[in-house]
Amino acid sequence: MSRIYNFSAGPAVMPEPVLERAQAELLDWHGSGMSVMEMSHRGKEFMSIAAQAEADLRELLTVPDNYKVLFMQGGAHAQFSMIPMNLLRGNKRADYVNTGSWSKKAVAEAKRYCDAQVVASSQDSGFTRIPAFAGWTRHDDAAYLHYTPNETIGGVEFHWIPDTGDVPLVADMSSTILSRPIDVSRFGLIYAGAQKNVGPAGLTLVIVREDLIGETLPGTPTVFDYKVHADNGSMYNTPPTYAWYLAGLVFQWLQTQGGLAAMAQVNKRKADKLYAAIDASGFYRNPVEPASRSWMNVPFVLPDAELDDAFLTQAREAGLVGLKGHRSVGGMRASIYNAMPESGVDALVGFMAEFERRFG
Amino acid sequence: MSRIYNFSAGPAVMPEPVLERAQAELLDWHGSGMSVMEMSHRGKEFMSIAAQAEADLRELLTVPDNYKVLFMQGGAHAQFSMIPMNLLRGNKRADYVNTGSWSKKAVAEAKRYCDAQVVASSQDSGFTRIPAFAGWTRHDDAAYLHYTPNETIGGVEFHWIPDTGDVPLVADMSSTILSRPIDVSRFGLIYAGAQKNVGPAGLTLVIVREDLIGETLPGTPTVFDYKVHADNGSMYNTPPTYAWYLAGLVFQWLQTQGGLAAMAQVNKRKADKLYAAIDASGFYRNPVEPASRSWMNVPFVLPDAELDDAFLTQAREAGLVGLKGHRSVGGMRASIYNAMPESGVDALVGFMAEFERRFG
Repeated sequence: MSRIYNFSAGPAVMPEPVLERAQAELLDWHGSGMSVMEMSHRGKEFMSIAAQAEADLRELLTVPDNYKVLFMQGGAHAQFSMIPMNLLRGNKRADYVNTGSWSKKAVAEAKRYCDAQVVASSQDSGFTRIPAFAGWTRHDDAAYLHYTPNETIGGVEFHWIPDTGDVPLVADMSSTILSRPIDVSRFGLIYAGAQKNVGPAGLTLVIVREDLIGETLPGTPTVFDYKVHADNGSMYNTPPTYAWYLAGLVFQWLQTQGGLAAMAQVNKRKADKLYAAIDASGFYRNPVEPASRSWMNVPFVLPDAELDDAFLTQAREAGLVGLKGHRSVGGMRASIYNAMPESGVDALVGFMAEFERRFG
Repeated sequence: MSRIYNFSAGPAVMPEPVLERAQAELLDWHGSGMSVMEMSHRGKEFMSIAAQAEADLRELLTVPDNYKVLFMQGGAHAQFSMIPMNLLRGNKRADYVNTGSWSKKAVAEAKRYCDAQVVASSQDSGFTRIPAFAGWTRHDDAAYLHYTPNETIGGVEFHWIPDTGDVPLVADMSSTILSRPIDVSRFGLIYAGAQKNVGPAGLTLVIVREDLIGETLPGTPTVFDYKVHADNGSMYNTPPTYAWYLAGLVFQWLQTQGGLAAMAQVNKRKADKLYAAIDASGFYRNPVEPASRSWMNVPFVLPDAELDDAFLTQAREAGLVGLKGHRSVGGMRASIYNAMPESGVDALVGFMAEFERRFG
């Protein structure tokens, strides 16, 4: 079978040129006689791969010099613990914004370490919008404010950055990082599991302002100390080298696409097309208010859940997979990350129209 | 350039047939139209890969039914914290055996959580032997006894399993797992970073007796709770899917080699050849007492450290890389894991003889 269009929320589609290059280099990287996955992480070959990946990421996101870039393990779930363990710094209070499933997980874990208060929530709307900033009950003495710029499951996204003054802003960008330019200097810490917009699962990116790290809660595992990783160039322990390499290939691919400004244009166009098709149909429905709609994850429902199986089966036959909505919300979800080509969105829109013609 | 012989201690050489299969399947796994690294971890394709890998590992090691097999992240360093956090279970004391660099790291981290006592050590010998069991000052009320069956840096290995009675035995098998059959039922918990004998870095295997898990220290990060991972089939959070897949290919390759009994024969023969060449030379020297020599990591020194650079350079020209000893001990080290073919050891032995003829 040829390659299909994979709308999975993560692990997710990767750029085909990246996979092709990884395939070509799999047994012998640049004449080294080794696969990247066989290289000592302290050897000159892998050190060059690692350094290039960090440099390319810094360039793509214009990361200021006073931020450390860490290549870690454990995914967002590990970050949910590491953030309070590292960023409370003697404070007992942290603010959290609740915009859906991933926010809630972050809050629940933080509550085990501090007085983590939800200072804004869109629960009353069923998480179909971003709560207006004016109503946030923030604390100026909070150690940090945590939010989830894009909710992978609910498909709601911030299209603005909260202004938290001197309170460091912490963002779970797992499902939106690298989808557009961002002003890193507005953040205290940005983290992202790689398996959506960066590379394979098992790698977690952390971008952290260096003055925020170095003081951990008693009992913090050493591998959960950002400073330890920062001081060791993310090689305190053996990093996930192959995932790091693949992330580097993705960064290079993003550069060839014109960088994040160009990606933003394509991503917006892809999202606009899909939402326009949904809204125009009268058959499909996306529950999120237009100003809060995600560019990355587009949930939608059919008029009758009894049609879901037919939709998924026929979509698969048309080469469109990974469209089943998260088990917690049902319906459909199309994740259209950087690596989903516009032709994939076009194919989905075409399939949806045809399905509606037959079942609508 | 063609493939070289890579004696790196980890990340380390992988079986060439495994890399070839990964390469062939990289863009399209079994007609799915997707790379394994693009698959949802909850989709039927990856679930089948994951289940097969666990089943094959269980078969290779004859893992009893009352043991959980976990596919985790974070390497041995994460385990150094997780073990006391999970296995103390209200106890405050744990016993540790110190046979070198990796043992010491495990003890240092454990001391942050409990009264971790070194009950046996070979420090007085410069870590060149395994301390005789008769002299161990074990505690019958310890929560567990931790040891390192193979020290990757020092090249000392247990060729026997300590009998700790009712005290659960915990073993860091990172550099020896799958090198021979073991009696899993003798252990409370076995862990291993994958990047030596299992697969790529970023995956950690844990085999734990199920009655030992479920009670963690207060403040234990949820992702550090073995029970949470066990209850969720290692999918509480997104696992390192591609590394899991590659480990599965390695398990299949081990089966085609005849399983662990056959690997043990080959591994012993490879080690015997190399030690015999070292001992017979009068030029090279391995400092470890014969009964404690590792089958996996063979450190050796030249008569004059001034020759080291020439040795390494000429070895590289002969297609033999990764031979530099750990920075903490100097000299040379040949890691000859499962995936190092016997022809690689033969080539190394031949090169060493030739080097000695010219410089001895």
